[in-house]
Amino acid sequence: MLILAFESSARPASVALVRDGKLLAQSTQVSALTHSRTLLPMAKDLLKNTAVALSEVDVIAVAHGPGSFTGVRIGVSTVKGLCWGAEKPCIGVSTLEAMAWHALAVGGLVCPVMDARRAQVYNALFRIEDGRPIRLCPDRAISLEELSDELRALGESVFLVGDGAVLTKDYLDAQGIPCRLAPDDLVWQDAWGVAMAAQGRAPVPAAELLPVYLRLSQAERERQERLEKEQG
Amino acid sequence: MLILAFESSARPASVALVRDGKLLAQSTQVSALTHSRTLLPMAKDLLKNTAVALSEVDVIAVAHGPGSFTGVRIGVSTVKGLCWGAEKPCIGVSTLEAMAWHALAVGGLVCPVMDARRAQVYNALFRIEDGRPIRLCPDRAISLEELSDELRALGESVFLVGDGAVLTKDYLDAQGIPCRLAPDDLVWQDAWGVAMAAQGRAPVPAAELLPVYLRLSQAERERQERLEKEQG
Repeated sequence: MLILAFESSARPASVALVRDGKLLAQSTQVSALTHSRTLLPMAKDLLKNTAVALSEVDVIAVAHGPGSFTGVRIGVSTVKGLCWGAEKPCIGVSTLEAMAWHALAVGGLVCPVMDARRAQVYNALFRIEDGRPIRLCPDRAISLEELSDELRALGESVFLVGDGAVLTKDYLDAQGIPCRLAPDDLVWQDAWGVAMAAQGRAPVPAAELLPVYLRLSQAERERQERLEKEQG
Repeated sequence: MLILAFESSARPASVALVRDGKLLAQSTQVSALTHSRTLLPMAKDLLKNTAVALSEVDVIAVAHGPGSFTGVRIGVSTVKGLCWGAEKPCIGVSTLEAMAWHALAVGGLVCPVMDARRAQVYNALFRIEDGRPIRLCPDRAISLEELSDELRALGESVFLVGDGAVLTKDYLDAQGIPCRLAPDDLVWQDAWGVAMAAQGRAPVPAAELLPVYLRLSQAERERQERLEKEQG
């Protein structure tokens, strides 16, 4: 099975081609450019340089969130459009699960963390077993305090990946909780992880692909607060 | 310092942009296409998609070998041409040292191995210390038997990276020598490793950049054997 995968849930934009679980090609960039400008040209160039036609791709996978509202929206919208246009099915996977694949070589307990602002991180916990991450809890928005309490109870060093890894490490270090920061080549999410997480999942029609935000956006939250105030 | 790095010493072709030790962008492909066809288009697309002009690049780095004679030749020639044309200095780094960077997260003893055919591997040993690989011996072409004896004497599990990792693991397993195979996301050499290995090295003019083969090519070897036979 040939999977074309997209990741744009935070600062990096990444596109990968994976055939039967083996990486064929990947382009990742951590630039300041907007994903709406970079994602499709990257995919187009990747297919051109590997001489693979979009028609040969079996399924298109995307990190459906959680993550930056704008980033997730761009990734999901791009893949919905591409799937509709090219008549391909798609698979949405958790951004956090995709990131957890980066701990394969390290093993043990993996803690993907994305900066969710407001002293929270998007997070889930995984354990590497039999060459793949096994999920230990659902994706959630959690305060660093709660996460820290949970990890203390587990009593085991965790491997931190994701754009929230540095801030989480600072917090956990201050609490004396053992953790290791992923190095530069593994800390960022990428489309390879998305393709690996999509392996063996059932594809859905593009119309059924939906972003997973876990929280209301700032605009929605402010609107709700304003409505509550007006009603109160 | 902005480094544009190239890796084409084996099956993967890879191009990366690294600024002050931080990855900006990377494209890697493990396709059946020849590097002479893929390497420059990949670099061109990478610069276009990150909106970086070649003129902004400070230095161009390349894995100068050991590796596939054709692959190393294409990488070194491409970078020599590019440096001459764009008036940039270059840095050649060991393919094996560049690969060793993939063990950062794992730590310990790293054993990059490239299939050199004729029951040999290109290899060197490194230890991860202070967030970088420290070289323990020079690059060499070595038989699996000799490497195996050396690792037995060291008495420590090694992390295998490179296109010779699977064949080396099979050999070491049969000898009862502890080793771990890098997973799919870390086993192949890439241009990020080349850029990291180039950090802090003194650039040279393009004319001084030379491939490092470690062994004679098959054609040269056969010619030498023929000459010896004729003379004998």
